Amino acid sequence: MQAAVIPGYAYGNVGRSPLGTGDLALLEQAVLFGPDDEKALRMAGEVLADQVEDVLDVWYGFVASHPHLVRYFAGQDGQPIPDYLDAVRKRFGQWILDTCNRPYDQDWLDYQHEIGLRHNAAKKNQTDGVDAEPNIPLRYLIAFIYPITATIRPFLAKRGHSSGDVDRMHQAWFKSVTLQVALWAAPYVKDGQH
Amino acid sequence: MQAAVIPGYAYGNVGRSPLGTGDLALLEQAVLFGPDDEKALRMAGEVLADQVEDVLDVWYGFVASHPHLVRYFAGQDGQPIPDYLDAVRKRFGQWILDTCNRPYDQDWLDYQHEIGLRHNAAKKNQTDGVDAEPNIPLRYLIAFIYPITATIRPFLAKRGHSSGDVDRMHQAWFKSVTLQVALWAAPYVKDGQH
Repeated sequence: MQAAVIPGYAYGNVGRSPLGTGDLALLEQAVLFGPDDEKALRMAGEVLADQVEDVLDVWYGFVASHPHLVRYFAGQDGQPIPDYLDAVRKRFGQWILDTCNRPYDQDWLDYQHEIGLRHNAAKKNQTDGVDAEPNIPLRYLIAFIYPITATIRPFLAKRGHSSGDVDRMHQAWFKSVTLQVALWAAPYVKDGQH
Repeated sequence: MQAAVIPGYAYGNVGRSPLGTGDLALLEQAVLFGPDDEKALRMAGEVLADQVEDVLDVWYGFVASHPHLVRYFAGQDGQPIPDYLDAVRKRFGQWILDTCNRPYDQDWLDYQHEIGLRHNAAKKNQTDGVDAEPNIPLRYLIAFIYPITATIRPFLAKRGHSSGDVDRMHQAWFKSVTLQVALWAAPYVKDGQH
């Protein structure tokens, strides 16, 4: 991993999540996430390692083609901010690898909370020092579970794995993305309701 | 549909969603939901019509086997309230059919908001007049996108449809569940952040 060279990527050096590893274990049960999914994600990490830019091309293409989505990268003049798009893209690529390769421990939990904060009015734009839309509505974070899950499958299938292995990688990915969005929601939610 | 005979099922007779059909159209774009998905859901509605109780057995079995999930059906003594479980189950069955068969219009949008309210501290327990846990944490609503999606597939495959049709029904279901959870989140979220 190339953590040191990605501006704003502060894994291991952020504030504490309101949740602990006990809460995480219960949430993992709710998405049926277990040791077999960890293994499948490690495999996915190997499969995706040299496809990260291609995956990001698909995702950025999807966002760019929808004005109501790309606006969250836009400044006061309504124009997307290229440096902002680029800076987020590098971290987004690292997020793919972290999703597959990181242990889901307190550091990981803390960083999921940081990711939530960076989408939310609490901290959006700060990392990159931009003056873009101040909040990405939570409903879009939740909605993105679908495209982020559906579009990854062809990439998982591109390295000749059996359809059983591709299924296992894809289901583990789906579980992890759902789990992460559940965590990212925390800064949006009223006290005691997350 | 048997709307009239389900206690507390108030479709078409609830408060207004904070979102309108224009917002819904944009959210549908974010989950890639379109006319082909509507068709696939109608097909799923036919496939699931006589399997609703079997689907609910799987979901209730999943919840019942996890103390940290079943507690939201429990009273002050920690024991699940059978009448509450039964009352919710009837509406949950109708929800399966509504997901497949209802047009996604303002009435539907309003009822999604009502469903969100009924999970949230704003209105949980009121419909059934029970004194159970007062709020289901939003993170569990989001997490449930996974089991509610993954467990439906075997039922969609049980009536001899081609694997292509089963895939289309399953993807449409996944999109719809994601869309609905995004809507259900509204009552949980701080002003202006949903």
